[in-house]
Amino acid sequence: MAKDEIRTEYKLVGTRPNRPDGLDKVTGRARYGADFSLPGMLFGAVVRSPHAHARIKRIDASKALALDGVKAVVTRADFPTGLTGEDWNLQENTMAGDVALYDGHAVAAVAATSALLAQDAARLIEVEYEILPHVTDVDEAIKPGAPAIRPGSADHSVPPHEGETPDMCRHNVVRNIEFGHGDIKDGFAKADLVMERTYKTEATHQGYIEPHACVGQMGEDGKGEMWVCTQGHWFIRRMCAAVLGIEAAQLRVTPSEIGGGFGGKTTIFMEPLALALSRKAGGRPVKIVMSRAEVLRATGPTASSSMDVKIGMTKDGTLTAARAEFRMQGGAFPGAPVDMALYCAFAPYKIPAIEHIGYDVLANRPKCAAYRAPGAPMGAFAVESLIDEMCGELGLDPIEVRLKNAVKEGDKSSYGPTFGKIGLVETLEAARAHPNYSVPLGPNQGRGVASGFWFNHGGETSVSLAISEDGTVQVSVGTPDIGGSRASIALMTAETLGIPYEDVRVNVVETGALGVNEPTHGSRATFASGKAAVEAARQAAREMCRRAAKEWGIDEEAVVWEDGAARPAGPNAGKFPPMTIAEIASRMGSTGGPISGHHESVPGGVGASFGTHVVDVEVDPETGRTTILRYLVVQDAGRAIHPSYVEGQYQGGAAQGIGWALNEEYVYGDDGRLQNPVFLDYRVPVASDLPMIDTVIVEVPNPGHPYGVRGVGETGITPPLPAIANAIAVATGARLRHLPMNPPRVLAAIQAKDRG
Amino acid sequence: MAKDEIRTEYKLVGTRPNRPDGLDKVTGRARYGADFSLPGMLFGAVVRSPHAHARIKRIDASKALALDGVKAVVTRADFPTGLTGEDWNLQENTMAGDVALYDGHAVAAVAATSALLAQDAARLIEVEYEILPHVTDVDEAIKPGAPAIRPGSADHSVPPHEGETPDMCRHNVVRNIEFGHGDIKDGFAKADLVMERTYKTEATHQGYIEPHACVGQMGEDGKGEMWVCTQGHWFIRRMCAAVLGIEAAQLRVTPSEIGGGFGGKTTIFMEPLALALSRKAGGRPVKIVMSRAEVLRATGPTASSSMDVKIGMTKDGTLTAARAEFRMQGGAFPGAPVDMALYCAFAPYKIPAIEHIGYDVLANRPKCAAYRAPGAPMGAFAVESLIDEMCGELGLDPIEVRLKNAVKEGDKSSYGPTFGKIGLVETLEAARAHPNYSVPLGPNQGRGVASGFWFNHGGETSVSLAISEDGTVQVSVGTPDIGGSRASIALMTAETLGIPYEDVRVNVVETGALGVNEPTHGSRATFASGKAAVEAARQAAREMCRRAAKEWGIDEEAVVWEDGAARPAGPNAGKFPPMTIAEIASRMGSTGGPISGHHESVPGGVGASFGTHVVDVEVDPETGRTTILRYLVVQDAGRAIHPSYVEGQYQGGAAQGIGWALNEEYVYGDDGRLQNPVFLDYRVPVASDLPMIDTVIVEVPNPGHPYGVRGVGETGITPPLPAIANAIAVATGARLRHLPMNPPRVLAAIQAKDRG
Repeated sequence: MAKDEIRTEYKLVGTRPNRPDGLDKVTGRARYGADFSLPGMLFGAVVRSPHAHARIKRIDASKALALDGVKAVVTRADFPTGLTGEDWNLQENTMAGDVALYDGHAVAAVAATSALLAQDAARLIEVEYEILPHVTDVDEAIKPGAPAIRPGSADHSVPPHEGETPDMCRHNVVRNIEFGHGDIKDGFAKADLVMERTYKTEATHQGYIEPHACVGQMGEDGKGEMWVCTQGHWFIRRMCAAVLGIEAAQLRVTPSEIGGGFGGKTTIFMEPLALALSRKAGGRPVKIVMSRAEVLRATGPTASSSMDVKIGMTKDGTLTAARAEFRMQGGAFPGAPVDMALYCAFAPYKIPAIEHIGYDVLANRPKCAAYRAPGAPMGAFAVESLIDEMCGELGLDPIEVRLKNAVKEGDKSSYGPTFGKIGLVETLEAARAHPNYSVPLGPNQGRGVASGFWFNHGGETSVSLAISEDGTVQVSVGTPDIGGSRASIALMTAETLGIPYEDVRVNVVETGALGVNEPTHGSRATFASGKAAVEAARQAAREMCRRAAKEWGIDEEAVVWEDGAARPAGPNAGKFPPMTIAEIASRMGSTGGPISGHHESVPGGVGASFGTHVVDVEVDPETGRTTILRYLVVQDAGRAIHPSYVEGQYQGGAAQGIGWALNEEYVYGDDGRLQNPVFLDYRVPVASDLPMIDTVIVEVPNPGHPYGVRGVGETGITPPLPAIANAIAVATGARLRHLPMNPPRVLAAIQAKDRG
Repeated sequence: MAKDEIRTEYKLVGTRPNRPDGLDKVTGRARYGADFSLPGMLFGAVVRSPHAHARIKRIDASKALALDGVKAVVTRADFPTGLTGEDWNLQENTMAGDVALYDGHAVAAVAATSALLAQDAARLIEVEYEILPHVTDVDEAIKPGAPAIRPGSADHSVPPHEGETPDMCRHNVVRNIEFGHGDIKDGFAKADLVMERTYKTEATHQGYIEPHACVGQMGEDGKGEMWVCTQGHWFIRRMCAAVLGIEAAQLRVTPSEIGGGFGGKTTIFMEPLALALSRKAGGRPVKIVMSRAEVLRATGPTASSSMDVKIGMTKDGTLTAARAEFRMQGGAFPGAPVDMALYCAFAPYKIPAIEHIGYDVLANRPKCAAYRAPGAPMGAFAVESLIDEMCGELGLDPIEVRLKNAVKEGDKSSYGPTFGKIGLVETLEAARAHPNYSVPLGPNQGRGVASGFWFNHGGETSVSLAISEDGTVQVSVGTPDIGGSRASIALMTAETLGIPYEDVRVNVVETGALGVNEPTHGSRATFASGKAAVEAARQAAREMCRRAAKEWGIDEEAVVWEDGAARPAGPNAGKFPPMTIAEIASRMGSTGGPISGHHESVPGGVGASFGTHVVDVEVDPETGRTTILRYLVVQDAGRAIHPSYVEGQYQGGAAQGIGWALNEEYVYGDDGRLQNPVFLDYRVPVASDLPMIDTVIVEVPNPGHPYGVRGVGETGITPPLPAIANAIAVATGARLRHLPMNPPRVLAAIQAKDRG
């Protein structure tokens, strides 16, 4: 068992066994958020603001409380005061205080003995509003004179525009960031072609199939329990504790299986309401299950953006300078991922001079949440579209131009750190070599290429591993299994211990049973929980060697762990027969007690990942409808522990990107109300919208992980937006710079071009 | 934070805060075994043999399976074959194979969509029996010529009696043990008085209020989950895995709250049936809740016993020699606690010569389980009764005689090991000094004294502790909280870390989240899980000192943990303000990651415990009814972490002992059927049967535990049986040597004495 040496031959890593949760999921036995119930449970319903911006003058719950079976009503008055910073934001978003800040903002909640009764009661709660002026569009919100959403929250480091006084201007800008390197003036001067364009993307939702659902129980003693569909139950615990003013350790949070999250289930929405209702209802458990409309109106979509990008290129395709100014609204709270968008925008390229400017802007919309590579798809849409347009202008092949400028190991990244071993070049070469890149195209067809980037992430991680009495092994992790991480962690654990995959059970355990864990986000679960599981397995193996050494009466350093057994080594080699894990386990009780391994850390050695997508589209010139003919994802996984689930991530990222590119958007009316809060009108791709998505797993092992893992969840959603825009530009001759590129927009662009 | 030094002044240890599970338990919110439900859940019912001994010729489930809603029937044919040893015993007791071995033995089980339907279906399962001869009494079962219960299971090391041939004789004796020390012939020769008597006790049940209940789910992939009322979920896991032929790590077992166990919930009964039914019903969860009759007929009562004891004493009360021959039946399987009974019988005394002989005898009764200090009460009944009788004969005070012979630190025990620091003398002195020992008695009243002993136990223990982001602390333990161990472990953890009791939450976690743990048995929970929690807390404190040292830029050895904060010490003392646990916790993510502590071991340093009880009774000479006038428990706790729960254990042990002494017994008819399988006929003491039980907590700290804990659960049930018999002998002049001393037996004894 050599340490931290990345071998290339494995018994289990890289194979494709069934996932441990497979049978439960295909038979319908897996328990999701809404599948949990308790004796005496109540049901909660939430009263939500129908206004985008309104002062709450009065809440009268007396009619609701008069209904037989209604057990509790909570408003903001039931929450502690005095919170600050992000805790206050979370509390304010959980339940409006003086002012409702967006259509769907919770203003009260009620618990009753049935879900229908709770909904009836919610309708009986009278809320008197004074409607305030609102703004939902990012470009409108940033204008001087726009309605001030949270007076006093402005970032006063933002310099005033001409004619603005410092205290009134840009009052919705809550953060301004600027960074870069090199001399951009000089860079642009060296370019043969400089182009500047403006791009815009609309807010999209993660569109997870499973709506938010939880059961919360809390007594007057401040001790609570919660069962919830989440990507990260420690986040839920910490945030609920902060919002409710209780101690974190007194709340046990158990995650259900999860029907998709994509970043949207890393924060709280109605969870504190369930606990507050339970506390007020004498500790009876309260279940809250969101409707789809509630999910769309009141959870956390991504930000919408408005972006200016300027790039300089020489005739041979060398990038000389770049500038990006991104404006993003993430709802009525700070937190639009404009920083991430900027960090990722130029990350694939080595550019001598770059200037990044970002504005985080408030608007009367729900507080944005993470969505798969937060911010990166918007930035990539702008930058990769512009590079493609410039390649067209200069008659250069888009892959060749990317190869010429691609970052490599040792290059300083556009956002600061120096890259370690990375695989962008390998993805570009694999894309170029793939048959999809040379299929002949017909009329109204076009091929688009784009690359994308995501940092990947380590994050706080705690894993424990225990040997059972029969030598089978359990691993306790804190990262909910979304994309097959139970399988990948079991494979790595079994590989490390040299035992069969089937002898390992990976359990996603509740907060009360393990140290702190960040969510399954940042593409970190297989990387971080996997790395920690390997460390824990090595610790257990060392202890097993110790037990064997003791039984054999030899020095523990003279025992090695190999192929599921302790073996005497060195001068003792062959002196004793191997002692298997089952033998050691069966005697644990008499040789020193239970054998476990533990690991807590913020794992270093995170490996950045790049991908390159190639898409062929056909655009119907009559309707503007875009059909995806074929789609290729090439991405560096580092090492694909379970290739099927890596491919699944690649395909899923592409599918979501296609939806974002072509159809998905939040549509707000003039009244500031969301007009399409159902899946009939908020159109995510369905099976018939998509071809089988081709994948190529590039493996440039990450030296920072014992099996070379990088993380594969997020990079794949970054290239689709520009790749499809680039393909549509070829197919139609029209360049679309405003997402989604739905039939009306494409048709309008074609017609505008034809009017020329 | 000095290591392993027992201080005498504490901030929290020894205080009486509310137990953490108190609010849930008094408000009815605590979830017990039957309170768990799942979507799609089925209900199981068990078909049980009505015969004490019968060959199963045929099982026909066709009528049951024809009922709409019946989803599965299992018989022994659904279990794997080839098991051996205790695994086979467990499987055979779970479900009969060729032969039903006792009234109530499971022969089939059925799962259906409702509990009533399952019961109906169970009645439709036809079982054809061939009735075999049976035996239920231990003295009958050991006789040559008794029906052979498990042919071939005899212990052939048992020497034949006169006229027996080795292969036919004593065929129900499955174990014969003999041990002792000294020359008993010489010892008896030195005595002034030698008496020999025979004693008998009947089987009793632990009488826990909560019947066994579980929900089991298992897929065809061998992965399962179980929610169950148990004292030890790892035992349930291991036993179910063995009986069903699955891997231990693939089964996750979650314990409910527990409404009493007393040893009876440390093994499996219907749990494997729920899993087998689930597996056969396509993985739907199956709930089985036992009726009281099933609990009494088919779970594990204690053994019944027949005991000969011979003791030699000098005129001044010095014990010179002793001999004990104990015969116990523990049902149709090996395992009567005759070894434990013998180990404990003379443990309070230093006797120069002792001979112990024991027989484990099969009979047609349910497989016995542990019951609070298994075996010890029977042995104490015999020995402490005889010593009392001899004190009476010689006119000696029973406490003085016990003090004269009492074991002390450094004495070799009757069962082998040498005692460490123990507190028997202190309990005798405290009993003698207590007002109860000198209250004047009236007519028909008598005072009885007896001492008792239990080893206490370490056992396999795994505990993890984690610091939350706000500095509150959670402790994950594997020992279900029966008598307040959450409170005692929280007190010790908080004391160790120097933080408030309320900042610690102790969680009893499922098997999938922690290394192996023995059950809450052997009086080990507060001792072993507590000791491990203290070790885990010290580990976390060391890590917090390390983090502080790093932030301060000083050597980690120069930082100490005191009063909930890291503090620079030695030459650095006062250089930096203390860094509190909340401060360190809030920065964990950026200083190295989550902070946890773990401990796995079989903790050594177990401290034996002794108790002395004094009881006053009044016996109605007309009816033979015994009234307990006052009852005093004096017992060495080592250290009472939470005195209220220590007192509760003392009172509970006494109450159960009173029931066993006076009323409780399994009554079998000539047909071998249990005649009293309900609480109306199986009479446990009710509140009106008992006075307030007085307690004195003696504290002779155990040097093997950081806070001096010994364990308090079991010793308290050992003295009541003889103490009450001794009191009745004084009150009536009649010596009862057969339990229970119910009114008919007492009346008969009085009448026999009066007849002279």
